[in-house]
Amino acid sequence: MKFTAAISIMPLKEILDPQGKVVTNSIKNLGLQEIQNVRVGKHITLEIEAQNRVLAQEKVDQACKQLLANPIMESYTFELQDAIKSS
Amino acid sequence: MKFTAAISIMPLKEILDPQGKVVTNSIKNLGLQEIQNVRVGKHITLEIEAQNRVLAQEKVDQACKQLLANPIMESYTFELQDAIKSS
Repeated sequence: MKFTAAISIMPLKEILDPQGKVVTNSIKNLGLQEIQNVRVGKHITLEIEAQNRVLAQEKVDQACKQLLANPIMESYTFELQDAIKSS
Repeated sequence: MKFTAAISIMPLKEILDPQGKVVTNSIKNLGLQEIQNVRVGKHITLEIEAQNRVLAQEKVDQACKQLLANPIMESYTFELQDAIKSS
């Protein structure tokens, strides 16, 4: 079975996010004073081949832990979906 | 009312994603051959003060169009949620 995973990786709340601060200020300069506390992270999509959903989840979790996210500075969440069969 | 928005900004499918290609290869080197077609984009969270959900959506859309996403190379989606009242 083929799944697609959508992973969101964000800087931990306790950690300063300089890029987010800059974006917050830039947004204010656009006249959108209502927007606050912008934080910028990564969004990663990937395709994964696995026998079932549980195995796919394990693989994605492993990829996040070993490569995609830095657990000291970042937290991650992901969602798995069945890939639409195009073949 | 206060809302939080979670915005995902991804490179368009027609556009090459060199960072994603590198991650795809690195993941293979980790022994996760099952993972393919990694694409890397941005995930942005922000807080927004607005009278109602429709107005909040308009503001977030405006911020995406004017600042956060580059419509020539990227597509964006976002979700709005009621912020949990902490005051």
